Amino acid sequence: MASKNSSEIPEDTYVELIEATISAVYETGYADLGVRDIDAKFSKSRQLIHHYFDGKDELITELLVYLLSDEHEEIASSMDADPLTKLNAELDNILLSTYMDDDEFWKVFTVVYEIQAQAHHNAEHQRLLNELTDEYVAHLSEILQDGIDEGIFDDVNPQQIAMLINDLIAGAHIRKIHLGQDEAPGNARETIDQLIVSRLLVNSSTDTMSGI
Amino acid sequence: MASKNSSEIPEDTYVELIEATISAVYETGYADLGVRDIDAKFSKSRQLIHHYFDGKDELITELLVYLLSDEHEEIASSMDADPLTKLNAELDNILLSTYMDDDEFWKVFTVVYEIQAQAHHNAEHQRLLNELTDEYVAHLSEILQDGIDEGIFDDVNPQQIAMLINDLIAGAHIRKIHLGQDEAPGNARETIDQLIVSRLLVNSSTDTMSGI
Repeated sequence: MASKNSSEIPEDTYVELIEATISAVYETGYADLGVRDIDAKFSKSRQLIHHYFDGKDELITELLVYLLSDEHEEIASSMDADPLTKLNAELDNILLSTYMDDDEFWKVFTVVYEIQAQAHHNAEHQRLLNELTDEYVAHLSEILQDGIDEGIFDDVNPQQIAMLINDLIAGAHIRKIHLGQDEAPGNARETIDQLIVSRLLVNSSTDTMSGI
Repeated sequence: MASKNSSEIPEDTYVELIEATISAVYETGYADLGVRDIDAKFSKSRQLIHHYFDGKDELITELLVYLLSDEHEEIASSMDADPLTKLNAELDNILLSTYMDDDEFWKVFTVVYEIQAQAHHNAEHQRLLNELTDEYVAHLSEILQDGIDEGIFDDVNPQQIAMLINDLIAGAHIRKIHLGQDEAPGNARETIDQLIVSRLLVNSSTDTMSGI
């Protein structure tokens, strides 16, 4: 964990504090955030926050550590299905928030992009966000490699396709979150299906980019 | 223009003020920005800024109006070449900054993404950023349509491919600017070439996603 002694916090208090941090960044934004805004969402005393964390930047670091361990868990428990089903489930999840309450999902992503937009000013936040991206790309890449090994997908460069999908997701997320284009993630989901996933399949009848 | 009477400002003073605004946002960030930071980069008096603009948000609006008119001009003057050459030139420009000093290019884009990350808090900024995106996508789409009409490109959905390219560019820009991945735009340029542009070509020999 980011704070030297944050592992001493009881689990339910820790989760409540992380959720309070997410809500505070979501409502106040990163720039205007103070520990008092996080405290306002937190049932325990502000002294407890100050005992474990040295200001808002360390709380944001802890939030990123939490999201990273959450990502580890989700990847570890990802269902035992064939690679195509797995890939489609991942894309549905990250673009259509299939497995989560929609408002809660976009709240977390809004906060992540808010922190990311300031990450060039904080080396530790930048390192953790790079780790989040790297893990996600490695996870997609692994699904693609499994599909190649099983003869379902063509012999593509899995790392390159995984990064392409990652960038498309980020572009669509940002158009929704910052530009208010609510249809962007759904449209990106269709585009990825039509122009990328369906072309990965061995013996796919569609060549080039046409036929839509 | 955004400010009712900003058209009265002499052209060179206007351009100097826009450049001062870009430098101030780049160095100070959007959140901590004050008119004094812009004034510090500007040779004329701060009274002149206050005479024409009602605070930093109106100056940011003016900056976006300026970038939009700049985009109009660039699109209008885009060279008279075949659609494939034109498309490649656009991609080289926006990912490899072929036609501009590299530092100046990334400075402007850093500022645009900085403003974009706050755009959900300012309806006027959001509207102008949507216009910038829409115009860029429409421009790419037009190049693709010309290529289809001339029989160079397959009969694709130009709007869909243009949006896909736009999202890939945004994803790669953000990885460079916010996550410090300097190689991201160059890698995205190669990926777009190998997996999208080369597959647009009529009778392209590469089918599906493999063969890289």
